Amino acid sequence: MNVLIVYAHQEPKSFCGALLVVATEALKEDGHEVKVSDLYAMGFNPVCDRWDFTETADPDYFKVQKEQTHATAGGSFAPDIVREQERVQWADLVIFHQPLWWFSVPAITKGWFDRVLALDFAYGRGRWFDRGVFRGKRAMLTITAGAPEQRYQEGHIFGGIERVLYPLHVGVLNFVGFDVLEPFITWAPIQMSIEEREAELQSYRSRLEGVWTAEPLPFHSLKRHPDPLEGLNSYVAPRRSS
Amino acid sequence: MNVLIVYAHQEPKSFCGALLVVATEALKEDGHEVKVSDLYAMGFNPVCDRWDFTETADPDYFKVQKEQTHATAGGSFAPDIVREQERVQWADLVIFHQPLWWFSVPAITKGWFDRVLALDFAYGRGRWFDRGVFRGKRAMLTITAGAPEQRYQEGHIFGGIERVLYPLHVGVLNFVGFDVLEPFITWAPIQMSIEEREAELQSYRSRLEGVWTAEPLPFHSLKRHPDPLEGLNSYVAPRRSS
Repeated sequence: MNVLIVYAHQEPKSFCGALLVVATEALKEDGHEVKVSDLYAMGFNPVCDRWDFTETADPDYFKVQKEQTHATAGGSFAPDIVREQERVQWADLVIFHQPLWWFSVPAITKGWFDRVLALDFAYGRGRWFDRGVFRGKRAMLTITAGAPEQRYQEGHIFGGIERVLYPLHVGVLNFVGFDVLEPFITWAPIQMSIEEREAELQSYRSRLEGVWTAEPLPFHSLKRHPDPLEGLNSYVAPRRSS
Repeated sequence: MNVLIVYAHQEPKSFCGALLVVATEALKEDGHEVKVSDLYAMGFNPVCDRWDFTETADPDYFKVQKEQTHATAGGSFAPDIVREQERVQWADLVIFHQPLWWFSVPAITKGWFDRVLALDFAYGRGRWFDRGVFRGKRAMLTITAGAPEQRYQEGHIFGGIERVLYPLHVGVLNFVGFDVLEPFITWAPIQMSIEEREAELQSYRSRLEGVWTAEPLPFHSLKRHPDPLEGLNSYVAPRRSS
């Protein structure tokens, strides 16, 4: 199978970096192909703007959805976006691997969502959730969290981790049709002994072995969570603001 | 009072841009001082990395929390971060104003959180939530959403909007101690008539008039949501990964 790892950490010697090494080794040993989009190393630009496109749909009014629709139709995304879009299409599994910052991914990963998962390429025209573009593909979050797990339990100070990850799981991965797997979260690696870190790396290796047969999380589906506006497509061509 | 608007939209002629004009005009008419950090116009760099700092705490191992602590102590943040940090300190109210992308803020705004709200400057050493650095200041989200409100109702396809905004409200604004006000959300401005847009702008103007007396949202507090690790500070100096 083909695995894309969208990876964001500045320091190769970090525990995040160690998890990446384990993942690529383990997946290759099992006969899979692995590509890593190492966002910091690539100098990936996370700002969605006119430079996302080599042609302009409307030079007088920048509307990102209109430009993305135009670029999907005409093949005029910037090369850095095309490369990532081709990788997602190639992948059977996409792992988004990064530390948890401000209850979310770092900006460099958020910008990957903003720029790569473009309208008409990754969603639109009724294709989302169960009818999503990437249905049949799997996705999971691999996260290192600075705080211990206790803080992310329901009723405690940060609230449940599933609340924290809701926008990423439902609003990004589920939205574009991925089967979303349980996240792999390392809690406070900073506080682990060497032995605990080795056990954690082994645990990640085991998780990845089971990744093809694991039951996806029971997230949103259009059957259980109907679209109240079924049949209407809100992602229509923009009218000008006055 | 002093108001900082952290603004992210590429197109001044957008409805997002119209809301910004209304906000700055209305707040100034009421005698307040207003500063706008227009992130796209500034070319704000959202990538948190070594260039955040003019000095290095550890040239051999990049750990962002260690570098932020060092920079807070030594005054060695990069000038673009210093400018924003001074603006937050100056402000009595901070408005984060942007479209909703992927159930969150655009990467350029996420990077503002990642880089400006640095450890020891904006949190750390027991200062968070009720004991947060910015307690006494107010913050609110001003959002334009592409989809109509019905999609963001509990049980419907996107789930409740309060779920979507949880990481921003609790994990960012509440975390650093702001009193978090109800967000101002414009649903699907693309589908509004000119008259509806004018009414929406007027509604925003009214909301801003009441911003100083509005009751903050009942978010997390250390009293109601205890820290299970009270007294321990998980944000400690890093040990090296092996």
